[in-house]
Amino acid sequence: MGSGESRPGKVSLCGDTSSKASESPAEPKGKRPPVLVDGVTLNGPTLDIREAESFLREAMPIVMEEAVWKATDVKEKVCEWRSPEQLKDLLDLELREGGEAHPQILQRCRDAIRYSVKTGHPLFFNQLYAGMDPYSLVGRFITEAINPSLYTYEVAPVFLLTEEAVLKKMIEIIGWQDGGDGIFSPGGSVSNMYAVNVARYHHCPDVKVLGLSALPRLVMFTSQECHYSVSKAAAFLGIGTNNVYVIPSDKRYAGYSLPFMVNATAGTTVLGAFDPLEEIADICERHNLWMHVDACWGGGALMSKKHRYLLQGIHRANSVAWNPHKMLMAGLQCCAFMVRDKTNLLQRCHSAQASYLFQQDKFYDVSYDTGDKSIQCSRKPDAFKFWLMWKAIGTKGLEERVDRALAMARYLAEEIKKRDGFRLVMEPEYTNVCFWYIPPSLRDTADGPEFWRKVHAVAPVVKERMMKKGSMMVGYQPHGDKANFFRQIIISPQVSREDMDFLLDQIHSLGMDL
Amino acid sequence: MGSGESRPGKVSLCGDTSSKASESPAEPKGKRPPVLVDGVTLNGPTLDIREAESFLREAMPIVMEEAVWKATDVKEKVCEWRSPEQLKDLLDLELREGGEAHPQILQRCRDAIRYSVKTGHPLFFNQLYAGMDPYSLVGRFITEAINPSLYTYEVAPVFLLTEEAVLKKMIEIIGWQDGGDGIFSPGGSVSNMYAVNVARYHHCPDVKVLGLSALPRLVMFTSQECHYSVSKAAAFLGIGTNNVYVIPSDKRYAGYSLPFMVNATAGTTVLGAFDPLEEIADICERHNLWMHVDACWGGGALMSKKHRYLLQGIHRANSVAWNPHKMLMAGLQCCAFMVRDKTNLLQRCHSAQASYLFQQDKFYDVSYDTGDKSIQCSRKPDAFKFWLMWKAIGTKGLEERVDRALAMARYLAEEIKKRDGFRLVMEPEYTNVCFWYIPPSLRDTADGPEFWRKVHAVAPVVKERMMKKGSMMVGYQPHGDKANFFRQIIISPQVSREDMDFLLDQIHSLGMDL
Repeated sequence: MGSGESRPGKVSLCGDTSSKASESPAEPKGKRPPVLVDGVTLNGPTLDIREAESFLREAMPIVMEEAVWKATDVKEKVCEWRSPEQLKDLLDLELREGGEAHPQILQRCRDAIRYSVKTGHPLFFNQLYAGMDPYSLVGRFITEAINPSLYTYEVAPVFLLTEEAVLKKMIEIIGWQDGGDGIFSPGGSVSNMYAVNVARYHHCPDVKVLGLSALPRLVMFTSQECHYSVSKAAAFLGIGTNNVYVIPSDKRYAGYSLPFMVNATAGTTVLGAFDPLEEIADICERHNLWMHVDACWGGGALMSKKHRYLLQGIHRANSVAWNPHKMLMAGLQCCAFMVRDKTNLLQRCHSAQASYLFQQDKFYDVSYDTGDKSIQCSRKPDAFKFWLMWKAIGTKGLEERVDRALAMARYLAEEIKKRDGFRLVMEPEYTNVCFWYIPPSLRDTADGPEFWRKVHAVAPVVKERMMKKGSMMVGYQPHGDKANFFRQIIISPQVSREDMDFLLDQIHSLGMDL
Repeated sequence: MGSGESRPGKVSLCGDTSSKASESPAEPKGKRPPVLVDGVTLNGPTLDIREAESFLREAMPIVMEEAVWKATDVKEKVCEWRSPEQLKDLLDLELREGGEAHPQILQRCRDAIRYSVKTGHPLFFNQLYAGMDPYSLVGRFITEAINPSLYTYEVAPVFLLTEEAVLKKMIEIIGWQDGGDGIFSPGGSVSNMYAVNVARYHHCPDVKVLGLSALPRLVMFTSQECHYSVSKAAAFLGIGTNNVYVIPSDKRYAGYSLPFMVNATAGTTVLGAFDPLEEIADICERHNLWMHVDACWGGGALMSKKHRYLLQGIHRANSVAWNPHKMLMAGLQCCAFMVRDKTNLLQRCHSAQASYLFQQDKFYDVSYDTGDKSIQCSRKPDAFKFWLMWKAIGTKGLEERVDRALAMARYLAEEIKKRDGFRLVMEPEYTNVCFWYIPPSLRDTADGPEFWRKVHAVAPVVKERMMKKGSMMVGYQPHGDKANFFRQIIISPQVSREDMDFLLDQIHSLGMDL
């Protein structure tokens, strides 16, 4: 019998916690002589939990005040611009032998927040995500504190079940009436990689074991304007970027090869355009091609009875990528990859059956250990925050937000048409409002290469002035043969009509002298 | 001139914030008639910030009390086990049309925390991560609140610079005296995929464009006991799992093929064993093979002057994966992938040069826009929490933690040798202490198939009882031809010598009747 059995009090450790403080393992400190191993004293814990508590008590009001309330207050700056060189000096980045005291660390927290871009600010329009949802935020604080990893039910029961519940509902909303399967991934790019991998595995299951060198050259198709992750996926997965063809316009396709998938985009990154999914589904059915819809951005419209027509036909897709961290404000990252398949394709395609993790002799139903469907081992509980937010505001609340964001984009587009010096790039389909600002000095110049060359130079300067002022953030980019234009993205319900007016006023005031 | 110019007050919006509340864009609500677009009223924000604030004020004490303090209190349970079926009922997972009021959502927060496994608890020994560091935790709360994505300096200045600082220091600790490059990835598995991709690109840059079908069959080598992600990487990247050979024992290798890399493991998942890196480096140099070291788990030993000899030779590697979220307690996820290369290999191999994101006409040095080195687009700021923790406890503090964890593992191994009914699988090299528990009923049985068949059945039952009691969590697994054994992992400085005794006592008390 082990010597430890002389301490039977331990056995009852975790029953009723109210009356057993003296039985806890860390408690009897000092009852035994100190043990020294390799020069290290091992009695008792060395993390001082009181000190940790005092630090957290001091730090949390800073986090809440500076990183939550001020960061979402329209009266505060969106950013406090510093050049990389200046910021390096300000932050004192170097990691040294000795540690620092709490007051210094608290100051570092304040500085990190101060010089960060406030992506939850109502005037942050720079990316395809924005805003702050309090329920999602609390969900995130919970998961950061609990620090789970989603391989097995054993270590992440709540987070695996909430992931399953969210996927089930998203699949229902896509319209796959017989269900499907899915997994949350670290980003839409990775979701699109999943699509390429399951599509080729579906066509050639041998690829997993034999690799691409044993197969004919695989080729995939994508619509124009797809996200750059489709190229990244082709490169990373060994397909090669040359084997990605653009439909229907691409004439290059020829030679001995095996077409296996089409990537369609629902909500393109720059223009917010939607591919005609029904037509693409027809082509895919005719040619037996896997149809993947990258709805990372446009998927939000599925929540709206009014706007889901934009994705008409998505139920015919074989797989869908949809990021609720974008339009639905679930917080980065929250990215679902879903397949219509019900033959355990995700598992078959990605599993490696690690026996140390996915033991089959467990005492519960191991079909809940879904981690082997993933290409990751450690995986964050990205669905939980979305689940909590969804519970709090309901499907109806999500729908109202989407409807409002689209109405706001419509308002902005109409304002742009009314105002001198602003020109729409195209009528918005979604909440990307793309437009040029033409300074007064150019308004009498005729359209032509010279005009556009000058317009091209306007947005970068306006952007620089905007950043240095910290008044708002909106993106710009060239696109195909089009000169630099602004891309305004609307998401957050904290954004008001007045903010749209402000945006246009501000661009004019920053660029009127150009 | 745009009509908005009639509101010149806006221009000064973000200067001094103290005296300009009335100039804020959202403020003049009601001054203009309501605007209705598509049936949606657009004046003013619709997110009620007061309501959000009141929710957060109520929720945060629950998060701190339940998910931080109780979750790390040795006197509390590690887990509150419920079967999947029971837990589904308890959590009411369904997502409905309507939302729920704050008291209900707060109860959902409490329930989610209650039924989650407390991975920061001192008696959670189940995975290769554990513990709670208060500085890292505050860093995580900050980044969740700020919600950045690490593509460009423009939107994540602080987080890109702290990532750079952390990578620089980790590279220095690896011993690459001329520097190197790196990127944080969403998990060690993805880091290992990066390694495969850069290694093959280094050998055949054409692979990015032409794909694997244009190349000879690529083959890679790995040492025994590598993590299962090496197989996953071979499958995902189109290499094929059959083209992964085990050195030096594998006799399969033959035929026309192109060897390009060796994966070595520093700290294996189950046994915590270290491959002889110097010897592997010799082989790689001789055959011009890319040498990757998966030091996701074992990398922690590099912080210790006493124990870094375990990774002797790591400076000769071409790439290293090292996860500070494991031994160094930075919190999931925190995973660095680093290359010794200084020719911008990561960028060349992974870039897709999206012109909407990586504009070259920005007003700052765009070499700080490091996002295109990644296979991800959105990317979380995983280095910041580690940076903050490192600042707080210093290199020395990290070293002390590692030294203590290894001393603790040594103590446990010696205890196991002393106690009847416990048997070490091997002398620990790191903090994985692997052992069998032999119940009294089997102690007189001679070693042999029958004995081991019975021993094999012990760990699952002890684990089940442990989980249902909630007293602690330790993993078990079979390994090669070895019967199920426990794998005890030691990481957190909150763990005491008394906890080691408790662990053995507890296993005995749970399994003595078997």
